Amino acid sequence: MNKGKKLYEGKAKILYEGPEKGTAIQHFKDDATAFNNQKKSTIEGKGILNNRISEHILSSLNQIGIETHLVKRINMREQLIKLVEIIPIEFVVRNIATGSLSRNLGIEDGKILPFTLVEFDYKNDDLGDPKLNDQHCLILELVEHQDELDKLRRMAREVNDILKPYFEEKGLNLVDFKLEFGKYSNGNIILVDEISPDTCRFWDIASGEKMDKDRFRQGLGGLKVAYEQVLNRILDK
Amino acid sequence: MNKGKKLYEGKAKILYEGPEKGTAIQHFKDDATAFNNQKKSTIEGKGILNNRISEHILSSLNQIGIETHLVKRINMREQLIKLVEIIPIEFVVRNIATGSLSRNLGIEDGKILPFTLVEFDYKNDDLGDPKLNDQHCLILELVEHQDELDKLRRMAREVNDILKPYFEEKGLNLVDFKLEFGKYSNGNIILVDEISPDTCRFWDIASGEKMDKDRFRQGLGGLKVAYEQVLNRILDK
Repeated sequence: MNKGKKLYEGKAKILYEGPEKGTAIQHFKDDATAFNNQKKSTIEGKGILNNRISEHILSSLNQIGIETHLVKRINMREQLIKLVEIIPIEFVVRNIATGSLSRNLGIEDGKILPFTLVEFDYKNDDLGDPKLNDQHCLILELVEHQDELDKLRRMAREVNDILKPYFEEKGLNLVDFKLEFGKYSNGNIILVDEISPDTCRFWDIASGEKMDKDRFRQGLGGLKVAYEQVLNRILDK
Repeated sequence: MNKGKKLYEGKAKILYEGPEKGTAIQHFKDDATAFNNQKKSTIEGKGILNNRISEHILSSLNQIGIETHLVKRINMREQLIKLVEIIPIEFVVRNIATGSLSRNLGIEDGKILPFTLVEFDYKNDDLGDPKLNDQHCLILELVEHQDELDKLRRMAREVNDILKPYFEEKGLNLVDFKLEFGKYSNGNIILVDEISPDTCRFWDIASGEKMDKDRFRQGLGGLKVAYEQVLNRILDK
């Protein structure tokens, strides 16, 4: 499949024009960044693993009626996706307190939250992805109206309701994760970006070990092995 | 009126036991702090002005049926107040973007917001008063339930609906302000703390000049003169 021109390069992925109007090719890089780009590295093979993990999860969601941008994986590092307008909010879904939530609000690391928390982070690197409340999202015109924001929050919760038990069956605790959504010109909303150990926190239920990008953030090493484990468990290998 | 023992000392006020159970004496200091205590100074007479300004505004609110903790001013620096349990949320009400809202979210300084924004800041100096969304307030158990939070947000908007036109008549633009609420043991909620140029941003409508604590934050000088102006306008002098 021929790639068109580069549309956008992010921290871990590149987007190219796709073969047809309304499509794009999403390329997974090996780059790892953390703390708003202050820590950087390259982990050989990470992009290949995320491509396969995200393919598997997004196609499973497609199959049960949650539309995602994924059309199909086309090679080791690339997926054919639907090109939609990205809503510039990161939807952070949290089942257990850790990371910035624990640091910023003084909630004990590892505490199971009384209910699933959905946070909105403004996708804006220059501003350091600040936290938003509902009214901020409206004032910044990141969504059309409150109903749309409510719908997005419900969709984020719905994805959690599906993925949390799914990963539990694989022996993984879905601690928290980040979702992004995009919109067709007719207003229809679909899930975009990726779902992988770069965007989720997974804690091994048996050992408590971290199986995600926190291995890089916290300098624990063994990131690639952990990501391979996640892929193998998803594939029931 | 005899003061009891010191109950609490904050940045700009001290609280003493009051003459009767369920009362306290609120003492206004001349201390000015900003940027979470990183900038400090003493401005002689500021406490006296804030005591009178806040007395006037809170007693006006009392008169129109918005219950506040103010019983009466008892001397130059002190007020007799009702002692209630403080809800540890600062309710920041904004009509115009400025300060941290502009800095953090990249909204142009001075932009009139499309609707009045109510933000929740966690009253926690150690954590730097982080911004909260509704769910954070519930998870941190800062309020009993969502209905209570909705009620507090409505009360904050109601105070704005009263104060904004009130100050407009005095030639002052009420840009933003901070409210705190407290609760009786029976669950009844009242307005507490103070309403003064320490807790409000006032822009003179005619000149655009800042008439509030930003004169201290931004090192503009003339704070006491500005506060005196605010008091005189409130008293229609």
